[in-house]
Amino acid sequence: MQQKNEIVPAERIIMGIDPGTQVMGYGILKVLNGRPSMEAMGVMQLSKYEDHYLKLAKIYARIISLIEEYLPDELAIEAPFYGKNVQSMLKLGRAQGVAMAAAISRDIPIFEYAPLKIKMAITGNGRAAKEQVAFMLQKILRVPNENMLPQLDATDGLAAALCHFYQSKLGGEETKYKSWKDFIGKNPDKVKGG
Amino acid sequence: MQQKNEIVPAERIIMGIDPGTQVMGYGILKVLNGRPSMEAMGVMQLSKYEDHYLKLAKIYARIISLIEEYLPDELAIEAPFYGKNVQSMLKLGRAQGVAMAAAISRDIPIFEYAPLKIKMAITGNGRAAKEQVAFMLQKILRVPNENMLPQLDATDGLAAALCHFYQSKLGGEETKYKSWKDFIGKNPDKVKGG
Repeated sequence: MQQKNEIVPAERIIMGIDPGTQVMGYGILKVLNGRPSMEAMGVMQLSKYEDHYLKLAKIYARIISLIEEYLPDELAIEAPFYGKNVQSMLKLGRAQGVAMAAAISRDIPIFEYAPLKIKMAITGNGRAAKEQVAFMLQKILRVPNENMLPQLDATDGLAAALCHFYQSKLGGEETKYKSWKDFIGKNPDKVKGG
Repeated sequence: MQQKNEIVPAERIIMGIDPGTQVMGYGILKVLNGRPSMEAMGVMQLSKYEDHYLKLAKIYARIISLIEEYLPDELAIEAPFYGKNVQSMLKLGRAQGVAMAAAISRDIPIFEYAPLKIKMAITGNGRAAKEQVAFMLQKILRVPNENMLPQLDATDGLAAALCHFYQSKLGGEETKYKSWKDFIGKNPDKVKGG
């Protein structure tokens, strides 16, 4: 029989990912009674897979397995809205789409943040270097140095998760754009024509 | 007990889709003893959903439900490799990625064809109008007129499936590009920088 009077601590798991076509970084943030800590972080090297579909299949499989292991409540995704050319954007869009489908298939809400927004939220500087973001993540989440340094590429995922945590404390719904048009209206500087 | 001497007709189901961000057309092609026929076709109006994630979720859900209903052996996808601008390509890439993830999650191999290639395979003219593609599909697959005309947008999905059937008779592996680089090498005219 379940104990009805048990006090369950308010735990919230945020998964953050930075889906690219060469590297995918991910981080799992656990928020216990309002305090964020790093639960896991990692990186997938995708450049070793030559086949485009194999890359997409690997991204999908890894995200599904992370979802099943950590049972995240939300997915935060680092999503650049501009790129070198239409071809690289199509590839990036596919990688993002596959990652989003994994969350959609498990009914996990998705929140996306531009890289500049994430860096700003973590370091106060939208143009901060990767090392600076990693440094701040270490400070804020008390991650031992030896765990962070070898995984610089993984920090983008964790940073997206922490950015979402901060944003949701301020009223996170603002960041889930109602539509693409809405996004562009609010972020004219983030969108570049090809 | 199973009858071991029963002759099972060689049946093959090809699902074809044209995933866009406004409309998604799909068609199910049944190949029985080498003869293709239309099993189903349809179209999803996505423009009515304002939310970008809702569109992606609807695409994913519909493709999963089509897979579960028709159990396709292969997925053929109409995939343009160029577009107006980087922003529209990112959106298209996400729609394609979500559709591909649905197939990946069910271990269904994916084959993609450029629109020009599909039109060429069905009509002999890479610049053929939608109506001409529909006309040829009706002739080849013996689809009654009243089933085809109201669904012009759906014909792109069915056309992709039929294109894949023709291609696979010629040795379809050629069309499953080993890598993006391989694709570009074989199709320099299909790729435009932004």
